[in-house]
Amino acid sequence: MTVTLDRLTKEELLALGRELNDQYGQFREAGLALDLTRGKPSPSQLALSDTLDTGDGGSGGFIAADGIDTRNYGGLDGLAEARALGAELLGVRPDEVIAGGNSSLTLMYLYLLNAWLYGPAGSGSAWRDGGTTRFLCPVPGYDRHFSILEDLGIEMVNVRMTADGPDMDQVESLVRDDPAVKGLWCVPKYSNPGGETYSDSTVERLGRLGTIAGPHFRIMCDNAYAVHDLDDTPPQLENIMDACRAQGTDDSLVLFASTSKVTRAGAGISFMAGSPVNLGAFRSRLQALTIGPDKVTQLRHVRFLRDLDGVRAHMRKHAAILRPKFDLVQRRLSEALDGKGMGRWSAPRGGYFVSFDALPGLAGRIISLAEDAGVKLTPAGATFPYRRDPDDTNIRLAPTFPDLSDLDQAMRVFTVCVQLVSVTQRLAD
Amino acid sequence: MTVTLDRLTKEELLALGRELNDQYGQFREAGLALDLTRGKPSPSQLALSDTLDTGDGGSGGFIAADGIDTRNYGGLDGLAEARALGAELLGVRPDEVIAGGNSSLTLMYLYLLNAWLYGPAGSGSAWRDGGTTRFLCPVPGYDRHFSILEDLGIEMVNVRMTADGPDMDQVESLVRDDPAVKGLWCVPKYSNPGGETYSDSTVERLGRLGTIAGPHFRIMCDNAYAVHDLDDTPPQLENIMDACRAQGTDDSLVLFASTSKVTRAGAGISFMAGSPVNLGAFRSRLQALTIGPDKVTQLRHVRFLRDLDGVRAHMRKHAAILRPKFDLVQRRLSEALDGKGMGRWSAPRGGYFVSFDALPGLAGRIISLAEDAGVKLTPAGATFPYRRDPDDTNIRLAPTFPDLSDLDQAMRVFTVCVQLVSVTQRLAD
Repeated sequence: MTVTLDRLTKEELLALGRELNDQYGQFREAGLALDLTRGKPSPSQLALSDTLDTGDGGSGGFIAADGIDTRNYGGLDGLAEARALGAELLGVRPDEVIAGGNSSLTLMYLYLLNAWLYGPAGSGSAWRDGGTTRFLCPVPGYDRHFSILEDLGIEMVNVRMTADGPDMDQVESLVRDDPAVKGLWCVPKYSNPGGETYSDSTVERLGRLGTIAGPHFRIMCDNAYAVHDLDDTPPQLENIMDACRAQGTDDSLVLFASTSKVTRAGAGISFMAGSPVNLGAFRSRLQALTIGPDKVTQLRHVRFLRDLDGVRAHMRKHAAILRPKFDLVQRRLSEALDGKGMGRWSAPRGGYFVSFDALPGLAGRIISLAEDAGVKLTPAGATFPYRRDPDDTNIRLAPTFPDLSDLDQAMRVFTVCVQLVSVTQRLAD
Repeated sequence: MTVTLDRLTKEELLALGRELNDQYGQFREAGLALDLTRGKPSPSQLALSDTLDTGDGGSGGFIAADGIDTRNYGGLDGLAEARALGAELLGVRPDEVIAGGNSSLTLMYLYLLNAWLYGPAGSGSAWRDGGTTRFLCPVPGYDRHFSILEDLGIEMVNVRMTADGPDMDQVESLVRDDPAVKGLWCVPKYSNPGGETYSDSTVERLGRLGTIAGPHFRIMCDNAYAVHDLDDTPPQLENIMDACRAQGTDDSLVLFASTSKVTRAGAGISFMAGSPVNLGAFRSRLQALTIGPDKVTQLRHVRFLRDLDGVRAHMRKHAAILRPKFDLVQRRLSEALDGKGMGRWSAPRGGYFVSFDALPGLAGRIISLAEDAGVKLTPAGATFPYRRDPDDTNIRLAPTFPDLSDLDQAMRVFTVCVQLVSVTQRLAD
């Protein structure tokens, strides 16, 4: 029988605490070494793309559709066919896309660096010239987005996430009131870590944001999980660039994606999309920085994935591997914690993470207790700017990499840690 | 019979001018479309590495020697075996190497950006904090080195090249007299475009430069042609890092190389080498900027090239393709211009270029005349900072990409243009 934490008597709490302590002790003795920290594909997912080299991608030589020899220098924007694939993925025109190297994070860093140092719209638009630069960060969010801003010395302002995406009332009011706010991070589909997909209304308001903000405000839209559905009736994300076009705010949006979680993590291709103003200013930097992306890898990918339909077919194979893992996480969380008032968690329909909110003040302790039992979790605070979770509540679970039996074990340890810390805290209150 | 330009009478000059004009007219009518502009490998050179994907590089799976799955995230410094290969190429220890992505130019840009913005030795060492930053540029040199400095707003100071490398008297005096001078570009073997290999004495003095300069001075040493010999008894370059170690100036040197002209141009791997101080400061930037390089490409390269001996064996195949092209350029230049006092040219024993010095003031006119006849040459001034050749004399010839018959035709056009412009100028004097 399940009883909510705050209805238990002291004696019941003590008994439960002893029981949990025993279970925890057994886990510790088992000498586990499990890792739920990073959103890495599993080896079986990676193997789905092993024919990149020797299958379709290998035949047909190294010459692209327009006759370009991919083994030689040149082509700052990437191969035409790679740009076309990126355009389908991001819902824009091919001429609005740059197909890059192995990391969309690098494109994001360089875009922001360029905007801060030289200006997102060229001469006279550099963010640094306006003194303090601030950026809106929906929380919890992706640590590497925050690291870029921290590296560039851009101040981060937390914005609440809702089931529909960032709290747009808060976003609009911050943008309206503070001209130092130069941008907003977004992961519009299966947001990291909460799994939210932005609602139609949120997308429409993102399109309108550029009419409120100054001309050099930018929505950094990392559509990392655009095609990473777990089931066949996924939530639909409205086209954000179209929402901007409808308002004449095309310049306010920059989109990113990559094939890292489609083919190979950190060995695929990246995409960036934006208006001529955005791409133009960015290209002038790119020109000095590179002789162009690895076009052999781009050609290989396009031959392997073909088009958006090909990508979707490929992603269904990923889903078949990932679904049992995400189901298992939900099952273990429900079995152990349903109705106990010890935390809430997301039930994402795609993406790479499950977001768990412990009782306020307990996330750090749960994470260290799990670590002592050999289960590594993402460090407390990692999902917040400056690694400071103001309520010490959020824990990001990454179930993709471990195999099912390791994941099962890790989740059993995790749920015992959540309960043990919650009960201990309740006893101390 | 060959007569030097300045010994010809006016009548002889007029007759020669008419003859050259006729030849030039025939070339124009032929409707040529030839390109000697960029140092690109030819298709037959690129084909030498086509088994990267399906040969040795394809077997053995995706797991590196230390068990790392190259298809997944991680590893900021690159694969251990790639770093070891880079270490052999650059003459340093593997722990002094970062193996990067498809472009060493990107590593150079990012190193300089980091040094200027954040400091080459971390906190407190940022070049921009000292106001104007200057850099010494041996000329003629590589346009893309200069573009990076121009992009970052670093002032460039020309330094004379000699047969032994940069004029070290001039370098030492500039470094001694001007604390704003923060660095020096070097291409120590088969320098671009002159083909010079730095002498032992130059290398020794480069090692000592750090004792004269301030602690944040850096020699940017792009060893792009380290193994790009044309014959079997190539000039030997002394180990520059050893020269620095001998003087305790390890921090003053950063080395770069890539496989772009070994395997595939812009689709290989890059290397950067430096002391712990240099790599440490750089890594802190890299950490925010990337999830690591494409390790699949790195593994493939190491399996294909194996080690420095493997690289040298591979480069002998390149030499067999390139030698006839470089020989042809020398032959055409000699036949047409020997003893005529219309210019001087380099006879490199490796690398990718032949450097031609026309009579002062004529390079731009020769280049446009050739272009009108369908032969594209590197733009006048490209080998100098700010695209300004003070004497308008240097022309970079890149004979690697065209096939022999195109190259032959292009060289015939070029030498006629040199003569025609020289004779015309002499008549006008």
